[in-house]
Amino acid sequence: MKDQCEMPIPTYEDVKAAHERIRPHVHRTPVLTSSHLNDLAGCELFFKCENFQKAGAFKVRGASNAVFGLSDEQARRGVATHSSGNHALSLSYAAGRRGIPCHVVMPRTAPQAKKDAVRGYGGIITECEPSTSSREEYFARVQEETGADFVHPYNDPRVIAGQGTCARELMEQMGERGGGLDCVVAPIGGGGMISGSCLTLSTIAPEVKIYAAEPEQADDAARSFRAGHIIADDAPETVADGLKVPLKDLTWHFVSHHVTDILTASEAEIVDAMELIWKRMKIVMEPSSAVPLATILKNPDVFAGQRVGVVITGGNVDLNKLPWMQK
Amino acid sequence: MKDQCEMPIPTYEDVKAAHERIRPHVHRTPVLTSSHLNDLAGCELFFKCENFQKAGAFKVRGASNAVFGLSDEQARRGVATHSSGNHALSLSYAAGRRGIPCHVVMPRTAPQAKKDAVRGYGGIITECEPSTSSREEYFARVQEETGADFVHPYNDPRVIAGQGTCARELMEQMGERGGGLDCVVAPIGGGGMISGSCLTLSTIAPEVKIYAAEPEQADDAARSFRAGHIIADDAPETVADGLKVPLKDLTWHFVSHHVTDILTASEAEIVDAMELIWKRMKIVMEPSSAVPLATILKNPDVFAGQRVGVVITGGNVDLNKLPWMQK
Repeated sequence: MKDQCEMPIPTYEDVKAAHERIRPHVHRTPVLTSSHLNDLAGCELFFKCENFQKAGAFKVRGASNAVFGLSDEQARRGVATHSSGNHALSLSYAAGRRGIPCHVVMPRTAPQAKKDAVRGYGGIITECEPSTSSREEYFARVQEETGADFVHPYNDPRVIAGQGTCARELMEQMGERGGGLDCVVAPIGGGGMISGSCLTLSTIAPEVKIYAAEPEQADDAARSFRAGHIIADDAPETVADGLKVPLKDLTWHFVSHHVTDILTASEAEIVDAMELIWKRMKIVMEPSSAVPLATILKNPDVFAGQRVGVVITGGNVDLNKLPWMQK
Repeated sequence: MKDQCEMPIPTYEDVKAAHERIRPHVHRTPVLTSSHLNDLAGCELFFKCENFQKAGAFKVRGASNAVFGLSDEQARRGVATHSSGNHALSLSYAAGRRGIPCHVVMPRTAPQAKKDAVRGYGGIITECEPSTSSREEYFARVQEETGADFVHPYNDPRVIAGQGTCARELMEQMGERGGGLDCVVAPIGGGGMISGSCLTLSTIAPEVKIYAAEPEQADDAARSFRAGHIIADDAPETVADGLKVPLKDLTWHFVSHHVTDILTASEAEIVDAMELIWKRMKIVMEPSSAVPLATILKNPDVFAGQRVGVVITGGNVDLNKLPWMQK
């Protein structure tokens, strides 16, 4: 497979440096287990709970690595992004910790709750029209006016190295030699968490398989994986709203080289898995984070008897609109 | 104050014995913190998360102590209770672990979900009419027919000694000498958790103050505390449905001797505190467990600058009917 990535590919040394850099700003999140879910799944599940992370998601790892890796001169000009999800919250949080501005370009039609959340973490919002061209125009203008450093939600070596600290922690928490973990399952959207996991595990535990979990209704990564090149979908619809974005060159590098397989689950399976986790594990997490368990329950033969790490990626969910209520 | 308790009063030796006895059957639940909630409350909060406990509540500590303390002969005849809440689940769970029957007398009008949950843990339900006389009649019949040992939800020395293991764990987890904890706040219904906390803390850390937290709309314990004798309400109504039951002689002993104060919160304050915990701590817990935080936020002067242990008592809640949706 030919590599067409134009950006520098981060190494495990970058993950270690990121871990040192972000340690004061992120939580070492707990690993939880549930004997009931183990019985259901026919394997041993170890949930790395990034829903308990600062700003409510693993994204704060990559964002903090980018923010705290800036030179003082660059930092003064701030950072910018155009996500409206967990990355925007995380970047705002990290910038706030460093005391520098974070500019977020968001469509004016974005839900008020998302705007409030970004502002709650200190982000400065520039509203654009809800189209790609308007977003790009406004984003270019913000960058020109401020000189802010663009931190992409996933296609950025600093971000991927930061996300790689999550798998590193999981392996440490599992005990000696990763506690005999057989595989890790994480959701895939743009591929930041999966790429970070690949980066770390391919170096320190190459025997651990890496499965990506994706909604059937937004299965562009699974189709890319089978086709051998990036396929980007136009605005897929899924309850797992963190997973709608396509792979990019840097994340495709890791996915195409290190992922064992990409498994998919239906909307109903995702919602059922989410409800099961809330009921049995008593944790608040978002639909995207339920996709791994949905795929594990759907593919008992793949995981039978194994020790399986599962990344619960985030916990930012509208408590007034839980998906099982619409069933 | 004259003691009118007819039952043997458990000692801290009983708590230590209970801890050894139940260790294989219960979780050592985590202590979580939230810098956001600390800022809001103006003190340092340490949440002992019994919502993650087996069967979803601290009640499994007392129930397991009762079940595993039975002689083999008594155990063969099983245990019985007439709770329809967390105690019934916990006793069914503990009996199941020992492989003995657990009889639960419940009104036939109890919600199907509660019956299903008890049966899910292996409990055997006998349905009675929804009146105290019918409940007593059916319960007496079950006891006569089976010879099962009655395990009261809270007015039982074995149960109180079991609940006392929770405060013991919290003190251990806080570090040397309890990490300088100034006080513990726990919800009060019948007083089992508060009594266990009093039993433990009055022995190993008598400098730690103990506050009980109660719904304004079911404030019989607060009124008992001021009056100096037990006042029992007739069927109070509150969203904190685990806290409707009255004190009994054994729990009154501990409450009257060791509690610093009983603080109350309104229904709206309880629901707000619950939503805050879900949103910020990303944990699923029941309304009763939110009463401590509600009273802490309402009484900033009482807790200012202190290190405060907060017992999150349970996590069994109907995910289809969350109280803030009815606001």
